[in-house]
Amino acid sequence: MKQHWILTLSCPDRPGIVHAVAGMLAEHGGNITESQQFGDPASGLFFMRVQVESAASHEELSAAVTDIAARFGMTWQLDTVGRRVRTLVMVSKAAHCLVDLLYRERSQNMPIEVVGVVGNHTDLADIAAFYGKPFHHVPVTATTKAEAEARLRELVKELDVELVVLARYMQILSDELCRDLSGRIINIHHSFLPSFKGAQPYRQAHERGVKIIGATSHYVTGDLDEGPIIEQDVERVDHSRDVSDLVAIGEDVERRTLARAVRWHAEHRVLLDGHRTVVFR
Amino acid sequence: MKQHWILTLSCPDRPGIVHAVAGMLAEHGGNITESQQFGDPASGLFFMRVQVESAASHEELSAAVTDIAARFGMTWQLDTVGRRVRTLVMVSKAAHCLVDLLYRERSQNMPIEVVGVVGNHTDLADIAAFYGKPFHHVPVTATTKAEAEARLRELVKELDVELVVLARYMQILSDELCRDLSGRIINIHHSFLPSFKGAQPYRQAHERGVKIIGATSHYVTGDLDEGPIIEQDVERVDHSRDVSDLVAIGEDVERRTLARAVRWHAEHRVLLDGHRTVVFR
Amino acid sequence: MKQHWILTLSCPDRPGIVHAVAGMLAEHGGNITESQQFGDPASGLFFMRVQVESAASHEELSAAVTDIAARFGMTWQLDTVGRRVRTLVMVSKAAHCLVDLLYRERSQNMPIEVVGVVGNHTDLADIAAFYGKPFHHVPVTATTKAEAEARLRELVKELDVELVVLARYMQILSDELCRDLSGRIINIHHSFLPSFKGAQPYRQAHERGVKIIGATSHYVTGDLDEGPIIEQDVERVDHSRDVSDLVAIGEDVERRTLARAVRWHAEHRVLLDGHRTVVFR
Amino acid sequence: MKQHWILTLSCPDRPGIVHAVAGMLAEHGGNITESQQFGDPASGLFFMRVQVESAASHEELSAAVTDIAARFGMTWQLDTVGRRVRTLVMVSKAAHCLVDLLYRERSQNMPIEVVGVVGNHTDLADIAAFYGKPFHHVPVTATTKAEAEARLRELVKELDVELVVLARYMQILSDELCRDLSGRIINIHHSFLPSFKGAQPYRQAHERGVKIIGATSHYVTGDLDEGPIIEQDVERVDHSRDVSDLVAIGEDVERRTLARAVRWHAEHRVLLDGHRTVVFR
Repeated sequence: MKQHWILTLSCPDRPGIVHAVAGMLAEHGGNITESQQFGDPASGLFFMRVQVESAASHEELSAAVTDIAARFGMTWQLDTVGRRVRTLVMVSKAAHCLVDLLYRERSQNMPIEVVGVVGNHTDLADIAAFYGKPFHHVPVTATTKAEAEARLRELVKELDVELVVLARYMQILSDELCRDLSGRIINIHHSFLPSFKGAQPYRQAHERGVKIIGATSHYVTGDLDEGPIIEQDVERVDHSRDVSDLVAIGEDVERRTLARAVRWHAEHRVLLDGHRTVVFR
Repeated sequence: MKQHWILTLSCPDRPGIVHAVAGMLAEHGGNITESQQFGDPASGLFFMRVQVESAASHEELSAAVTDIAARFGMTWQLDTVGRRVRTLVMVSKAAHCLVDLLYRERSQNMPIEVVGVVGNHTDLADIAAFYGKPFHHVPVTATTKAEAEARLRELVKELDVELVVLARYMQILSDELCRDLSGRIINIHHSFLPSFKGAQPYRQAHERGVKIIGATSHYVTGDLDEGPIIEQDVERVDHSRDVSDLVAIGEDVERRTLARAVRWHAEHRVLLDGHRTVVFR
Repeated sequence: MKQHWILTLSCPDRPGIVHAVAGMLAEHGGNITESQQFGDPASGLFFMRVQVESAASHEELSAAVTDIAARFGMTWQLDTVGRRVRTLVMVSKAAHCLVDLLYRERSQNMPIEVVGVVGNHTDLADIAAFYGKPFHHVPVTATTKAEAEARLRELVKELDVELVVLARYMQILSDELCRDLSGRIINIHHSFLPSFKGAQPYRQAHERGVKIIGATSHYVTGDLDEGPIIEQDVERVDHSRDVSDLVAIGEDVERRTLARAVRWHAEHRVLLDGHRTVVFR
Repeated sequence: MKQHWILTLSCPDRPGIVHAVAGMLAEHGGNITESQQFGDPASGLFFMRVQVESAASHEELSAAVTDIAARFGMTWQLDTVGRRVRTLVMVSKAAHCLVDLLYRERSQNMPIEVVGVVGNHTDLADIAAFYGKPFHHVPVTATTKAEAEARLRELVKELDVELVVLARYMQILSDELCRDLSGRIINIHHSFLPSFKGAQPYRQAHERGVKIIGATSHYVTGDLDEGPIIEQDVERVDHSRDVSDLVAIGEDVERRTLARAVRWHAEHRVLLDGHRTVVFR
């Protein structure tokens, strides 16, 4: 019985990588159905994502990749197509991103399994309940922040969480937590970064009189609003829109930008290239 | 014989403005063909642009508008539809914006008359010549900057220039000149402002790993890259694009963004609302 | 106490309309906050939408508009800003448009009140229930079509429905029903009309190898897929997308296209100009 | 001395293709800098484009590819990166696409060499002259059509033309000529195909009241407006735009859509998959 695999890898660029990988897959009866490569002249790194059908077991393939990886100094990951990534969604009061993710999980086969929703407020508990998701109320105040993060770490561990999505979660995580979950937390920032970092980006955008607003989905690092960008999108506005209009228009941009970033991450289409990303769409 | 007029005005918002203006136009046999209004709650200002067919003379209409303007404290302008605004285009070495403006003047009825091209280099003299435009070489060095600006002022006066377009002119104008030509100089900045102000925005954009690049056309004020934005546009890019690709892709965005801003200005569709713009498209 | 009114009107174009309307509003102490006009040279019709604050009663304003309307041969409508239009949503099995409309009604102040959901299948009853909306199962077969339409007419009457939204309702309504509800039914067609009329537009699009797919929201007339277009939007695709990908990508385009059309209709921004629409955004 | 090669190929899909190609390239000291593959489940065909640096000669590489091609039943092409494709541009009276292509050839390193411009009118002879291109006036009337095509065939032969671009050339070519130049003629159609085939698409679009207009660049086949689509793009319009506005707005869409298609073709990024295209951007 053949299975459908996704292999992603990166390593210092040099001749022979594709040949070695393709050869190894051919030896395991693999039929490549999708493959993308990119060599970044700036970083000197090579990136590859390949989907392959093969009857080999996970152990066999892993062992074979391990061999090649040693030769080329590769970082790699092997997964099956369509496996649902265990995801924890963190929210505050704004519903649009949560509603959208839960809808897409259920109806659009986005390959995530939302294993829990964490809110620092309880406003969105009913939405989580409607979709049959456990809701964890973890309030955050100046004095309970450390405690809240400890609870979050527990949940990540207990629920075997692979991906944390900040779906308009309005709290700033500690540097340490960001580091520990590096490459596994995705945030949606409600501006077209690097424009309008920080608080109230739509108010800033209105004051500056921009003609297009946007949203940015990025990995979270300790450096606020500076993490590697996964996806951005925009919408045209004009002088007649006030701040609340921008907020409403922005909701649509935010939710679709976040949804794409989460989907691409879950499909192993996003690879880190320093503080930039390679996205094999 | 009826003529087709454009009246633009702004004033503190209060009841009765539209009625007064529409009444005055009706008294002069005016038939309104296009009209737009906007009241900005933030600034408390009211803006109006109206196109009207009327057999009245410029003197008659001007006098009538002057009356109303006194009552409401209006700033206003009266022009005829399609009159070509006398325009001076300033360039350095990059051709794309100049080629585009000259093409649109000739073939697309953009209501400008390019009365001269100023270059601090001579690279684009042949393009100006092909379109039959006088080319003025005004070199700029650290020591000749004042002299160059004096020459520019002369040209503006001699050629009766109404609008100066910085079509990728890579020099910074003095505060004084910016002030004197306030509301009459349009620049194209090769980034999606306020992202990537200053030099080499495409290099900055590449380093930050953005997924969309843009351009911004704005009025020039003494405050570099901070003038009121008229138009912005964007293009999607991905990880495989290097800086030179971004530059090439950006050229298309720049030229169309600048062309729209110049057209709307020349059609009196852009009104200043503090450091923001109202654009009646 | 002032109220915020929306007046929309259309009539044969001729001088004096704006002046007459603005004068009438001024007489009733009206302060115009937003106003748009358009004269269509092709049809010879004039269209106007004005938002005005006034302390006058509905009766007073209606009487005053009636007077002017008689003089100019106007079709007109007077409503208050923000009043929720009583809306019936019709669905089959696809959830995306329904979920989106209900979400926007609740969270984004879209000025509709969904007074009921009609489904020819029961798949979406749980979503209606979650949002507290009565769900009416009205199955349709070849033999029960007349009966189903009779039931629909009853619901429109009982629930005092002002707007019917076909949110991916996969049944074709009779000519007679379309005529009777003319200007009050909005459909979302899952193609960029007039491309790919009829069934399975995404399959058609895939076969034709288009590089952009789209959706079209339009008023329903007896002439299938030919009603006046309110809004269209698109998304870029490439060769690697199969039909099911197009369907999933299309869902996002459909729901935002439909949401805009419904919002604009409910805000009285859409006026009919023959089989075209004037949309005052 | 290493050269930079582009190899494109397609063949029936089956395991081992990538491995065989990568192996062959590795044997010739090749370093893959860019590579894309696509297997189309619908047609059962596999497509690949690979850029590779190698010191091997054209003969050596060709011989090696010929071997593999025989095994897999491949259609293939081998070229060097940046080689300029000999291009003949055909025009009538509209200048925008010609101006744009000539500008991009000179300033943006589009890898084409325009070896001649053919016009059935002489309006654009001066633009050709400005860019130093021979202009051939080949008038077409009902009675001289055969003669005109004979002249065109001569030019294609004499000038060793690899690509013919119909840059708003308003004449219909014979089926026979289309067949003979199959895969080597690119047209720009001024509508979002398959909407508004045939004449005056902007007039049709205006009458239908669409909210978005577009352009389509496609290979020309005997079947008018039905050839494989290479690229499409769109622009938003509203009710206030008349037919001449749509024409002017459309010019921008047409020229950028055509420019992308020509560039991708010249960079060997477009492969035929039946009457669809695979575009490796």
